[in-house]
Amino acid sequence: MARWEPNPRLRLVRAAIDLFAEQGYDETTVAQIAARAGLSKATFFRHFPDKREVLSAGQEAHSTLLAEGAAGAPAGASPLEAVAAALDTVTTSFTPEQREFGPRLRAVVAAHDELRERDAFKRVGLAAALADALRDRGIPETTARLAAALGVEAFHLAFARWTDEPDGASYRVLARQALEELRAAATALH
Amino acid sequence: MARWEPNPRLRLVRAAIDLFAEQGYDETTVAQIAARAGLSKATFFRHFPDKREVLSAGQEAHSTLLAEGAAGAPAGASPLEAVAAALDTVTTSFTPEQREFGPRLRAVVAAHDELRERDAFKRVGLAAALADALRDRGIPETTARLAAALGVEAFHLAFARWTDEPDGASYRVLARQALEELRAAATALH
Repeated sequence: MARWEPNPRLRLVRAAIDLFAEQGYDETTVAQIAARAGLSKATFFRHFPDKREVLSAGQEAHSTLLAEGAAGAPAGASPLEAVAAALDTVTTSFTPEQREFGPRLRAVVAAHDELRERDAFKRVGLAAALADALRDRGIPETTARLAAALGVEAFHLAFARWTDEPDGASYRVLARQALEELRAAATALH
Repeated sequence: MARWEPNPRLRLVRAAIDLFAEQGYDETTVAQIAARAGLSKATFFRHFPDKREVLSAGQEAHSTLLAEGAAGAPAGASPLEAVAAALDTVTTSFTPEQREFGPRLRAVVAAHDELRERDAFKRVGLAAALADALRDRGIPETTARLAAALGVEAFHLAFARWTDEPDGASYRVLARQALEELRAAATALH
């Protein structure tokens, strides 16, 4: 055990991703994750209900942050300006560890149907939360759905680019770029 | 048992949706579904691997049909013309029974996390299949993702409207209308 000790939650996430990548998700038990993290099973269960939830650590917060960001945009903001504000706000939750874990996490999720279902559910949930927040701003239904779909595409495009290039631009910059690309593509659709 | 007998697969779907709506998804067994349909458990398992898959009956085909429709659009078709062709093609798989089941099916899915995850997974899968088919037409990555997202929004908007109004327009007409609404909203985004 190294002298430097990150917080228990982060150690559990790191241990889980390492074990899932090394030996497979199905083959990994909560006891093994706790042991690898140098913690007890009881500590594991104080942080997570089961091993699947380790992989969505922090993700519950994304929907809330997206909605808060959209709600907090200035009164005269256009739909896409509200989406940009939503992306700025969710950016505040991303940590250097998530950037480091990103590629391994994506590989683990891609290899397992149950995790892919969970990931898809989260993705659809993000779009719904953002669309709700946009509707609450008085944006019409179809425009709200569309702008939310663009926002979630930008969120995921930017996350993939952010984790693929650990020394590249910040998530905030990448999210803005992705949203601008999507906006340009949207106005050129015919 | 009525003298008119639809095919076993359809009887199983009808029985399952009725039982899920009446007594809940968790409380319903494969044996009950088979009994309600007047069929054996062995017949159930010839058509479906488990009770969850009854609800996605026919849905596996949607991704394939969307992709085929997009691939089959004329050589000079714009991205959204290819999406419209994809929606036209998937339309051919919708049956009067799906229109009738629609509202009860949506209520059953909405009430159960596991089914909502499955539904979200399908939705993300549709978007991926359509985006792949658009990329194969030489459409750039960002435009392909965006056009696919619009296509899937149109698919779901139209499905909701189609099942909400059993005597309304055909699915094909509603899908075209929804896509046109989304296109107009996209070109007006700023």
